[in-house]
Amino acid sequence: MNEFDIIARYFAPLSGKGAFGLTDDAAVIPPRPGFDLVVTTDAIMEGVDFFAFDPPGTVAKKALAVNLSDLAAKGAGPKYYLLNLFLPPSVAAPWLEAFAGGLAEAQGRYGITLLGGDTSATDGPLAVSITAFGFVPQGRMIRRSGAKAGDAVFVTGEIGMSGGGLAIFRREKHALSEADRNALTARYRVPEPPVDFGTLLCGRASASVDVSDGLIADLGHLAKASGVRIELDGERLPVPDCLKAWWGKDAILRAATAGDDYQIAFTADPGTQADIMAGAASAGVRATRIGTVMTGEGVRLLVDGAEVSVPRPGYRHF
Amino acid sequence: MNEFDIIARYFAPLSGKGAFGLTDDAAVIPPRPGFDLVVTTDAIMEGVDFFAFDPPGTVAKKALAVNLSDLAAKGAGPKYYLLNLFLPPSVAAPWLEAFAGGLAEAQGRYGITLLGGDTSATDGPLAVSITAFGFVPQGRMIRRSGAKAGDAVFVTGEIGMSGGGLAIFRREKHALSEADRNALTARYRVPEPPVDFGTLLCGRASASVDVSDGLIADLGHLAKASGVRIELDGERLPVPDCLKAWWGKDAILRAATAGDDYQIAFTADPGTQADIMAGAASAGVRATRIGTVMTGEGVRLLVDGAEVSVPRPGYRHF
Repeated sequence: MNEFDIIARYFAPLSGKGAFGLTDDAAVIPPRPGFDLVVTTDAIMEGVDFFAFDPPGTVAKKALAVNLSDLAAKGAGPKYYLLNLFLPPSVAAPWLEAFAGGLAEAQGRYGITLLGGDTSATDGPLAVSITAFGFVPQGRMIRRSGAKAGDAVFVTGEIGMSGGGLAIFRREKHALSEADRNALTARYRVPEPPVDFGTLLCGRASASVDVSDGLIADLGHLAKASGVRIELDGERLPVPDCLKAWWGKDAILRAATAGDDYQIAFTADPGTQADIMAGAASAGVRATRIGTVMTGEGVRLLVDGAEVSVPRPGYRHF
Repeated sequence: MNEFDIIARYFAPLSGKGAFGLTDDAAVIPPRPGFDLVVTTDAIMEGVDFFAFDPPGTVAKKALAVNLSDLAAKGAGPKYYLLNLFLPPSVAAPWLEAFAGGLAEAQGRYGITLLGGDTSATDGPLAVSITAFGFVPQGRMIRRSGAKAGDAVFVTGEIGMSGGGLAIFRREKHALSEADRNALTARYRVPEPPVDFGTLLCGRASASVDVSDGLIADLGHLAKASGVRIELDGERLPVPDCLKAWWGKDAILRAATAGDDYQIAFTADPGTQADIMAGAASAGVRATRIGTVMTGEGVRLLVDGAEVSVPRPGYRHF
């Protein structure tokens, strides 16, 4: 199969409005009056972000999810994506078919379509780079920089699950039930960003960031951009019970620095808490208040009222 | 240097409006009333599209040029770009500094700014993926599909130069002057797409494509999308004299199938030819009438009135 056959067979069926069936040099995004276009891009790579033995469909879903997570954290509703593939010679038709199947499933779930892309042969590792596009009411993108002293700090979903999944794949010893083991590895393979909840945060959250490198590292970016300090109440962090049983006294710190969660950490006026919880419930998303914004700088993790030392706040690519 | 240091030191200074200094999760493109956003993405890879010994600045310029070429062919004026980098461990500060310098030069020349991106470490070859954004009056993007029988076929600039440059790097024997040799290798390293001319084609060209795989291959895409046949007058092709002297009777076919030209091939009503030539002159671009659109399908290359067999119309990635 050459490049044109691959595009026509596997990817053209995923294309939507503005993509011209992937048969032109470029795609078109018409202006949406009153809305800004929000753009983000993130790549995942075999051996770093997924394993060579992962099912191609989960690789596709993860590549999309890590980008939709950024859009959600900014309050944007997703709409389009571009796909840049770097394919080693070992990749053949069955892999591509399953990969495209994963994209199709995610497209249906999130209401997005393929706008275009590029396919390159490589003698390096397989890599999938996605650029995702969403819309937000004009001037309303939620920045990292709006947190104020006195705001409450929240996080969606649970944290540490993906880190637990990775630890299982790395053969760390555990006594997890099969159900817990499957839940953790499934989350590592396919993150579940709170896409519908993101748009509800517009006008409610004062600042927001997606949790990708690690909760403490990403809240550190938010604190720096906002010029504030954040205190996290360790006991309140939504760490799954199975991780607490497995990792014991290290569970909170490990979960808060593991990364790959693809949840949203955000700040808001404490007076809006009831409203936010109602919005989360309506979107089927768990939201937990985990801390407070203060004057100062950095992120402090408190457990039983004492500060916990954080030697490594999150994942670093290099 | 970690990922954040690299971004802050080399890439944040290249960022413009909507990029928030590359310190947020996403970037913003405000709507431009009356204009469509045109999006294209293309990657270049060491060992395929450039050599490991190429200066980092020319790698940066080539990565941008291959994308700006697509925008120009669609009639769009460039505005923003995203940068996805895959860096092997051998890449250190001096490489990044020179690479960013090349981007800065191209930004100044084309009036574009960096909107965001992503940096990954790889144990594979160095790869640079760019996504470029431009604006075109709403509904006016020039498609591949508008050519009609009777239209004239044009191409900008010269073709085969980049192919000649590649042949020199591959140590094909030649007796070129130093000036010709340098011109050819420089063009292989840094394509010169007719960016300013692209916007003049809106409303003038009936169909358009960028010449990246090879003139005959890319006009083949245009002919297929338009449902027409194209006849090229081989003697009219703008092949540099030095290539004619070097490649002899093969020069026309080689130049028309070599690829990497990053010129624009387009069709237009022959009545607009004077207007198009005036527009090209005002943009400092050479435009040459090279053929005619007919009913039928495919591309025929005629030399001295006889059809030339084209075993391989252009480059294929795999």
